[in-house]
Amino acid sequence: MAQAAGAGAQAQGDSQESWSGVAPEAARRLLVAAVEAFAERGFHATTTRDIAGRAGMSPAALYIHYRTKEELLYQISRVGHERSVRLLSEAASGPGGNADRLAAAVRAFVRWHAEHHTTARVVQYELAALGEEHYAEIIGLRRRSEELVRDLLAAGAEAGEFEVADARGTALAVLSLCVDVARWFTPGGRRTPEEIGAFYADLVLRMVGARPS
Amino acid sequence: MAQAAGAGAQAQGDSQESWSGVAPEAARRLLVAAVEAFAERGFHATTTRDIAGRAGMSPAALYIHYRTKEELLYQISRVGHERSVRLLSEAASGPGGNADRLAAAVRAFVRWHAEHHTTARVVQYELAALGEEHYAEIIGLRRRSEELVRDLLAAGAEAGEFEVADARGTALAVLSLCVDVARWFTPGGRRTPEEIGAFYADLVLRMVGARPS
Repeated sequence: MAQAAGAGAQAQGDSQESWSGVAPEAARRLLVAAVEAFAERGFHATTTRDIAGRAGMSPAALYIHYRTKEELLYQISRVGHERSVRLLSEAASGPGGNADRLAAAVRAFVRWHAEHHTTARVVQYELAALGEEHYAEIIGLRRRSEELVRDLLAAGAEAGEFEVADARGTALAVLSLCVDVARWFTPGGRRTPEEIGAFYADLVLRMVGARPS
Repeated sequence: MAQAAGAGAQAQGDSQESWSGVAPEAARRLLVAAVEAFAERGFHATTTRDIAGRAGMSPAALYIHYRTKEELLYQISRVGHERSVRLLSEAASGPGGNADRLAAAVRAFVRWHAEHHTTARVVQYELAALGEEHYAEIIGLRRRSEELVRDLLAAGAEAGEFEVADARGTALAVLSLCVDVARWFTPGGRRTPEEIGAFYADLVLRMVGARPS
């Protein structure tokens, strides 16, 4: 399928920004290769040999950096989820009122899931393949993301800016709407990641009944 | 992981309703087994031998009903997408005004994605593994689902019931919000499929600026 074939190239486009904090360069190259392989074939159909091959390395060289295939998935998942927490937390403490902050959070979160849709799909759809301890750590990061949005909704409701009956359920729906962009987004489509982000920010402000404060 | 282990049992719970139109019983049993296997391990990591074994059949018996593993994925995908079109089209021609119809569509679509979340994940996340002709057919069904929601939004906007600037983008967002329920839903959670459906219908009516007609 053309779709699957395109996923690799896209992951490569992703790589420079997503993994810039990962050192040395060989470890970073392996993460990029793992994202490509997991996105194209799924975690269980991918071998460490496939990943090493894509990175132009030997399986032995891979084991210097990652003990197992699960360790690679964990690193991808951790970096992706930490990025989510950072984006949301920056927006939640940004300038303006709660509506401005919520709109900024949605714009940033959508933009990340569109621009890095290949990475985001691995991050969001392969969670069940994580080992127990790693899974628990990632679930903690997901809770943190949900709390950031929930607190923002609660603050807006308390200030009379939003009308939100169930802050927890609404926060989950807001994040869910943004995450699913990674499933359907294709580069070169009708709208850019920025345009989708701006459009979704408007939809979300309506969802929370935002009124000028 | 407990999550992955639970997926099989859940698919089994799904099976009776989802595949009731599939005959003979052996073909139905193989579809249920394929959903379980694809959900747990992904399409590419699953063999026809795995699927036959889960269904308590020999690989030779599988080939009487399905020529390839892709044929099984196609049948799962087709049944799932035809169900979506039917649910949306029934809601879109149901009683009441456009707001009632949109709310009914969201309730039915969310409920299906929650109750059949294992099937829905396979239907939504393994599209890229379909062969070219099958992929084109499924894309046609997806377009039909989008059109049904878009036409409903346009009708509501024209009647002055909704305030929608971009019916196409909004329709995509509405469906996207509902589809993503399949990713995060877990049975026995805080809310039932019906409760999530009712809550999401309210959020969507806000998104489209619904006013009493």
